[in-house]
Amino acid sequence: MEKSIRKARFLAEMSGPACGSAAAEGDPLFLQPIGAVEHHGAHLPLATDALVADAVAARLVTERPDLDVVVMPTLTYGTSNEHVWAPGTVSLSPVTLLAVLDDVAASVRRAGGRRFAFLNAHGGNTNLLRVAIREIRVKHDLMTFLAHCDLPPDNGGPAGDPREEGLGIHGGLGETSMMLHLFPELVDLSLAERRIPSWINEYRALGFEQGSEYAWLSEDITVDGVIGDPTLATAEHGRARVAESVRNVAAAVEEMLVFRFGTGPAVRS
Amino acid sequence: MEKSIRKARFLAEMSGPACGSAAAEGDPLFLQPIGAVEHHGAHLPLATDALVADAVAARLVTERPDLDVVVMPTLTYGTSNEHVWAPGTVSLSPVTLLAVLDDVAASVRRAGGRRFAFLNAHGGNTNLLRVAIREIRVKHDLMTFLAHCDLPPDNGGPAGDPREEGLGIHGGLGETSMMLHLFPELVDLSLAERRIPSWINEYRALGFEQGSEYAWLSEDITVDGVIGDPTLATAEHGRARVAESVRNVAAAVEEMLVFRFGTGPAVRS
Amino acid sequence: MEKSIRKARFLAEMSGPACGSAAAEGDPLFLQPIGAVEHHGAHLPLATDALVADAVAARLVTERPDLDVVVMPTLTYGTSNEHVWAPGTVSLSPVTLLAVLDDVAASVRRAGGRRFAFLNAHGGNTNLLRVAIREIRVKHDLMTFLAHCDLPPDNGGPAGDPREEGLGIHGGLGETSMMLHLFPELVDLSLAERRIPSWINEYRALGFEQGSEYAWLSEDITVDGVIGDPTLATAEHGRARVAESVRNVAAAVEEMLVFRFGTGPAVRS
Amino acid sequence: MEKSIRKARFLAEMSGPACGSAAAEGDPLFLQPIGAVEHHGAHLPLATDALVADAVAARLVTERPDLDVVVMPTLTYGTSNEHVWAPGTVSLSPVTLLAVLDDVAASVRRAGGRRFAFLNAHGGNTNLLRVAIREIRVKHDLMTFLAHCDLPPDNGGPAGDPREEGLGIHGGLGETSMMLHLFPELVDLSLAERRIPSWINEYRALGFEQGSEYAWLSEDITVDGVIGDPTLATAEHGRARVAESVRNVAAAVEEMLVFRFGTGPAVRS
Amino acid sequence: MEKSIRKARFLAEMSGPACGSAAAEGDPLFLQPIGAVEHHGAHLPLATDALVADAVAARLVTERPDLDVVVMPTLTYGTSNEHVWAPGTVSLSPVTLLAVLDDVAASVRRAGGRRFAFLNAHGGNTNLLRVAIREIRVKHDLMTFLAHCDLPPDNGGPAGDPREEGLGIHGGLGETSMMLHLFPELVDLSLAERRIPSWINEYRALGFEQGSEYAWLSEDITVDGVIGDPTLATAEHGRARVAESVRNVAAAVEEMLVFRFGTGPAVRS
Amino acid sequence: MEKSIRKARFLAEMSGPACGSAAAEGDPLFLQPIGAVEHHGAHLPLATDALVADAVAARLVTERPDLDVVVMPTLTYGTSNEHVWAPGTVSLSPVTLLAVLDDVAASVRRAGGRRFAFLNAHGGNTNLLRVAIREIRVKHDLMTFLAHCDLPPDNGGPAGDPREEGLGIHGGLGETSMMLHLFPELVDLSLAERRIPSWINEYRALGFEQGSEYAWLSEDITVDGVIGDPTLATAEHGRARVAESVRNVAAAVEEMLVFRFGTGPAVRS
Repeated sequence: MEKSIRKARFLAEMSGPACGSAAAEGDPLFLQPIGAVEHHGAHLPLATDALVADAVAARLVTERPDLDVVVMPTLTYGTSNEHVWAPGTVSLSPVTLLAVLDDVAASVRRAGGRRFAFLNAHGGNTNLLRVAIREIRVKHDLMTFLAHCDLPPDNGGPAGDPREEGLGIHGGLGETSMMLHLFPELVDLSLAERRIPSWINEYRALGFEQGSEYAWLSEDITVDGVIGDPTLATAEHGRARVAESVRNVAAAVEEMLVFRFGTGPAVRS
Repeated sequence: MEKSIRKARFLAEMSGPACGSAAAEGDPLFLQPIGAVEHHGAHLPLATDALVADAVAARLVTERPDLDVVVMPTLTYGTSNEHVWAPGTVSLSPVTLLAVLDDVAASVRRAGGRRFAFLNAHGGNTNLLRVAIREIRVKHDLMTFLAHCDLPPDNGGPAGDPREEGLGIHGGLGETSMMLHLFPELVDLSLAERRIPSWINEYRALGFEQGSEYAWLSEDITVDGVIGDPTLATAEHGRARVAESVRNVAAAVEEMLVFRFGTGPAVRS
Repeated sequence: MEKSIRKARFLAEMSGPACGSAAAEGDPLFLQPIGAVEHHGAHLPLATDALVADAVAARLVTERPDLDVVVMPTLTYGTSNEHVWAPGTVSLSPVTLLAVLDDVAASVRRAGGRRFAFLNAHGGNTNLLRVAIREIRVKHDLMTFLAHCDLPPDNGGPAGDPREEGLGIHGGLGETSMMLHLFPELVDLSLAERRIPSWINEYRALGFEQGSEYAWLSEDITVDGVIGDPTLATAEHGRARVAESVRNVAAAVEEMLVFRFGTGPAVRS
Repeated sequence: MEKSIRKARFLAEMSGPACGSAAAEGDPLFLQPIGAVEHHGAHLPLATDALVADAVAARLVTERPDLDVVVMPTLTYGTSNEHVWAPGTVSLSPVTLLAVLDDVAASVRRAGGRRFAFLNAHGGNTNLLRVAIREIRVKHDLMTFLAHCDLPPDNGGPAGDPREEGLGIHGGLGETSMMLHLFPELVDLSLAERRIPSWINEYRALGFEQGSEYAWLSEDITVDGVIGDPTLATAEHGRARVAESVRNVAAAVEEMLVFRFGTGPAVRS
Repeated sequence: MEKSIRKARFLAEMSGPACGSAAAEGDPLFLQPIGAVEHHGAHLPLATDALVADAVAARLVTERPDLDVVVMPTLTYGTSNEHVWAPGTVSLSPVTLLAVLDDVAASVRRAGGRRFAFLNAHGGNTNLLRVAIREIRVKHDLMTFLAHCDLPPDNGGPAGDPREEGLGIHGGLGETSMMLHLFPELVDLSLAERRIPSWINEYRALGFEQGSEYAWLSEDITVDGVIGDPTLATAEHGRARVAESVRNVAAAVEEMLVFRFGTGPAVRS
Repeated sequence: MEKSIRKARFLAEMSGPACGSAAAEGDPLFLQPIGAVEHHGAHLPLATDALVADAVAARLVTERPDLDVVVMPTLTYGTSNEHVWAPGTVSLSPVTLLAVLDDVAASVRRAGGRRFAFLNAHGGNTNLLRVAIREIRVKHDLMTFLAHCDLPPDNGGPAGDPREEGLGIHGGLGETSMMLHLFPELVDLSLAERRIPSWINEYRALGFEQGSEYAWLSEDITVDGVIGDPTLATAEHGRARVAESVRNVAAAVEEMLVFRFGTGPAVRS
């Protein structure tokens, strides 16, 4: 990516006046990636979700320089209360994270932004982000959006490889593959173990897709908190999945840039 | 329903010692219904969601006296920031509602409860309740659950009658029918108007089922905040839908009563 | 009560536009009943205070349809920290309840309301409500009021039947009688016991009427938290007391509807 | 007062170890005076309430050196939202003041205290202090109390001189007299004016003694916020009133020192 | 000091209208002294810092009646978390104290004030006050300042007497001398002991002047929390130090009164 | 740097179990870098402080692999209320940031950490971090530290190049030089302008080193918020300054690793 495009797309690299001009002269989407630092088993690094958020945002800018986005620096820490039992997890409480997001939104508004999206890479953030985007819309009069790098099954995402029985939720095939592609030096597949809690699917009414649900901590589910089968992971699958993620996010961003209440998508003039 | 069963099922009607015994001697599910008081168009009453939560909880107890539940008094007010533009809406802010739910959960724990569920009848509460049940599980060491009276499409529920184009979200066919069945004297169908914002479905990447989403206030969507087609509503459809709702909730409660992490459902001894 | 009056008086049953019109065209009193769910001894149900608040509000509307009130749905949970030792008590912390009341007041203001009253049925809420009505007046520019279903002696109410020695405060003669009249099926007089802590009256300077006071939890006072003599209760006394309560509240509401700072009560035009 | 007694009674003048010993070896009452800094009309100083609290606490120690109290430094600022319209008023919000009182209570507990009282000289603090003492009792397991320097009619105090028609509430005969006695150099009687809002007494159901009430700001009541008749004030009346205040507080403190739940007052061994 | 000047300088002694006029007609500096109530060893009283703040503020007014200041009543309690281990310490949490200071600042703004300063006598408050003055400037549009009675070495103040090895931080030579001068009856030198933790100076990179630092509680440093050598204290040194403190504060206040962003000090017209 | 050392030093790259082992088996310093995203003039990128924090932390690990540190992912956003007037600034409120730091500290404690330091690159964070490290020490029983990448003059750092007159505070010679060395592609020296507000030094009593101070926003000081002379910047000076920063931080970390209260530094076994 050209230096000038890069500087025009990453808030971290823009000057204040450049940011002000970008907002005043166009109508860019301010995109706030958010991840997590949390236990992902012995085979994956703690910051897996933050690294994925970073990587997808960076590829989005590289591959789609035409999209008028301002990528904000990734919020590395998210809310990870389901993993606080495990050393290394850094979790912001829901109320603290809501306060952070509100401060960030106020900053976007002050910069002149009108469109604001979260790009989320951690399933445990999803519901809180859904709460936040509505509250921010009311309070700061921003058009707000939420996109996901890779929506897990328990957030309403696709069930994935049948060998995971719809339970590839945390540290499994998908996440491990993406990391093998993006940061192979941070993955130690020799420590990966299959953790498929088939009993979850014995419940008919409670679960991820059934409408009713239970709250779970990762230690409730498996012995080491991994949920899925990382032994099936390959860099190749990861490459495909990252590519798909970038495509999906780009498609969402395209619409976010032209989104207007009351009419369908129009070409951005 | 017999008076004695009723008194054994509704926290409001139990004495303190009876509640303590129920928790100490059994392992009942404390079920907290929650609704909302918010604008539902000119044809429906403000408390529609709270009335539905009340009614479904009451029918659950009547039809399934075998289920060991303690139904708590309905939380009438929810978080309804998407409707604060409309007179009559009473909305608790997300942070306030989280604090209320935390206080309620602490009370259940003090009563000796170990299983705690929300029975939700307002789509706008859903994501916040998902945040709450996990946080309560961590903080109060309760097994926590969430069930819905009728999950709307934007919360992951079924698309419903095709004439609503998947947009029966607020004050439409389903809700109006249920109210016609439950509280016909509170419905004025003569004021109902079809409000189907078809433009929503012109977006491919943004929406209710696509993974990416935008935050919306009801005034963003239609002129009076109704989203759906209440003119299609009938008491008969309402009867069927309420019956289905009670069945679904009962099925979920059955599993909540025997739910254990690590194994599938077993018969409760 | 006629359906149409009922619908015009209960916020829960009004539509949003009807509520907006009521506020815009008149100057109704928005009346927010508030109770509690707390231990009341073995003979009374946990929701005694909420049930009384509900009942008094409903009778007010029935008996005095001329009063231009909008009765809001009862806040079932109050602040009951004096009873948290007892299973079944559901208590909101003072700060949480202040936040709830503030959100409710903001909602009344948005609806166009100018007069806002609490109708309280739980002595433990009284001081907090007094704090709240002043703060709401400052913050939301509403005229605010407080009325009580039945002010207990420790809140400045009358001493009552001399056999209770001025100590009929919680679950005693008055409350039990009102419940015998209103909800006889929820009272089990066979479990009622006289609990008169006469030692309270041995203090000269500390107490309910002396100006100085001590904070008490109900378990500080008697073995089961009841303070008073429920064995004296009768449905007949309850009927009289409820009637008096409704009369008193109606008289207060009459004045709230015409209250203006700077002049005495005038007939409402 | 002897220096050694003074040092043994005022927390400000004690050393840390002396405070620790006092609590460990006896069972003193920690007494926290609280006042306010708020508009009291043109004739009285802003800190009237704080000065009275200070003075009454000091006289208590001087006149009753036998009472085992630890007088804490006066909280000068209280909650005065009813006077924020007037320059010079310094008001803590209710939630902030509750947090302050909680921190102070925790400090008393850490010092080894078991009995903790507020000595209040500002009517606007009263209800909040009533909320606080119960919450502190629950949270910090302290025996908590509340005494008043001079309870005004709107807090349940005596009606006072009939020429004030029961309306000597703020800056009137009583307060002005006490200040004439205690701090004559701070009073300018030439600026005092009679402000008796007789219309208050035209309401039958709403008011200070009637059970139902309205929230008021001092600017709602009179043109300059004074409520009462300071022109009737004399230093002599003030002397009597201060003496009575000290006697009342001393009597209350006597009982606070021997107060036990479950039995009447006993002589302190 | 003349009574009239005194009344014109101390907010506590001014009437509300006098305060309003002072702000409207001039541009006085509202000066908020703040101290602490915390363990200062066996030889000094708990309120040492509050007493010093009081005394310096009073002398400032006496010696420099020409300075247009409005001295607010001292905030006796500060944040003293480094001494909470010791009985007698009364500490407000940082967040509570920030809320108090914000409420006070809002009150100054409402009074018409434009210049607002803290006069601090407790090292443990310093950093929080630095945070507060900037936040208040942003939020309340006040010109805000911070002055110190006697800045200790760990806050960037001078190292002082070499016999204290730069470690005269708490209850040492300086503070004890000032108290011997100001309040000799509250000092018990017979209980003073030298506490010089020389090991502190063995660290090269960590410490008070080196740029990097560690957080300390006073119990971390010495056996009784005193840091310094009070046995060196004399009233004469105290007299000089108080005089210097008043001079320094007066010089700072002089500049605060004429301070304008963008130009150097000018004579105040 | 070798991959294995890198993985052993960066929390982001460690697995949860590796982090737990590191804490359980050794006594590493958890080092939390913190920067800011705020206006730095037209010549520097918004994330200057975060980028510097990142870079210094990374060099520390590279150059001193012997130091037993666990570098946490940089907190990119800090508190930047002095720059909220400028587009692009993203500022967390002081209370929000304190809550974030508290959550992070709790996470370090849960991981088994005992030593916790902030590495700060933004002057506007300094005082809040000083508040935080003491509060965290009390609340979480961690040994806590604070180091700076480059302490500016207004935080007690060295005055620097005399051509900046002690006013190289924001976006000036030092910062610009460091960025020219570290991220030359993000600096546009052609837009740099000298901004030396010499009037600051005309004040004798108020200022950065004088003990008394005023709160300032960057827009109060210069026309574009830059304070210093970036036109003097060179990559060479930046190289030296970064090297010195890394040396200083390394020296501080060395002592943090062996720091014990009560004795001087010892060699770490």
